[in-house]
Amino acid sequence: MMKASSQIKPPVVFHTRESIEQVEEGRQLAPKFDDQGLIVCVTQDASSGQILMVGYMNAEALAKTIETGEAHYWSRSRQVLWHKGATSGLVQQVEELLIDDDQDAIWLRVKVSGSGASCHVGYRSCFYRKIPIAEKGYDSQHLVYTELEKTFDPKEVYGDVPNPTKL
Amino acid sequence: MMKASSQIKPPVVFHTRESIEQVEEGRQLAPKFDDQGLIVCVTQDASSGQILMVGYMNAEALAKTIETGEAHYWSRSRQVLWHKGATSGLVQQVEELLIDDDQDAIWLRVKVSGSGASCHVGYRSCFYRKIPIAEKGYDSQHLVYTELEKTFDPKEVYGDVPNPTKL
Repeated sequence: MMKASSQIKPPVVFHTRESIEQVEEGRQLAPKFDDQGLIVCVTQDASSGQILMVGYMNAEALAKTIETGEAHYWSRSRQVLWHKGATSGLVQQVEELLIDDDQDAIWLRVKVSGSGASCHVGYRSCFYRKIPIAEKGYDSQHLVYTELEKTFDPKEVYGDVPNPTKL
Repeated sequence: MMKASSQIKPPVVFHTRESIEQVEEGRQLAPKFDDQGLIVCVTQDASSGQILMVGYMNAEALAKTIETGEAHYWSRSRQVLWHKGATSGLVQQVEELLIDDDQDAIWLRVKVSGSGASCHVGYRSCFYRKIPIAEKGYDSQHLVYTELEKTFDPKEVYGDVPNPTKL
């Protein structure tokens, strides 16, 4: 038997973008997908505030994220709908989902299952290196690691899955 | 007379992307600009952890941000280099600048001058509305405001400058 809550859940509706006022000041969800059908998504660890990754969603991924409360993306390298954590177990539970003024960017606040990592290289965050600011007198020629150890071994977790990074 | 520090500051170098290992595990800055010459940038309030905006940088904007310690973007709507705060006074001082695993996204942690706002609509953050998660039993059909009052009046600050939002 289906749960009552799943029976009454209405489908997610994306409204047509009709005016600046509607998009900026309204309460209708009217996301702007780019010419490849994608919207950019910033994913943040809800408890630490750390940015974990920047991903992209197509309409289906955004709808599934809203419907299921788990982050879905469009994998640009693999060209498939990507339920984050399906391979690694590092599922991202959405605590809050926000959209920006012109509705062309998403901000996800998530809790990550398992080790809490989100980066395919093995780090907690994809942003594990900083660029020193020249104005402060630092050497901007060399990136500086902010995470000193990997959280997991990508070979153990992903096995032979191809590396998504493209040159 | 020039300050000594500005005399010895080397120019920012973007390295050619030669291997996955170099890009993901190296210390060379080798950003990937998309087919429009842009890289996406997530800008976060360094003290609160709030995401203020998602912007885009071309090579010049990224280099100027590194060199000056103040956020520069490429305005896609106006098609110009955009020193954030030049019109509004809401300059973003960079506290930390990070780059992601495949070097196609930037994370800026900033301190904002003046009222601390970053959104042209008048809110502190561009992300002033959330999409309720259907899985939690909420009505996903209507956005919910997370900022109840604007921080500044955009008409006073921007005057007749055209609204950058495009349908």
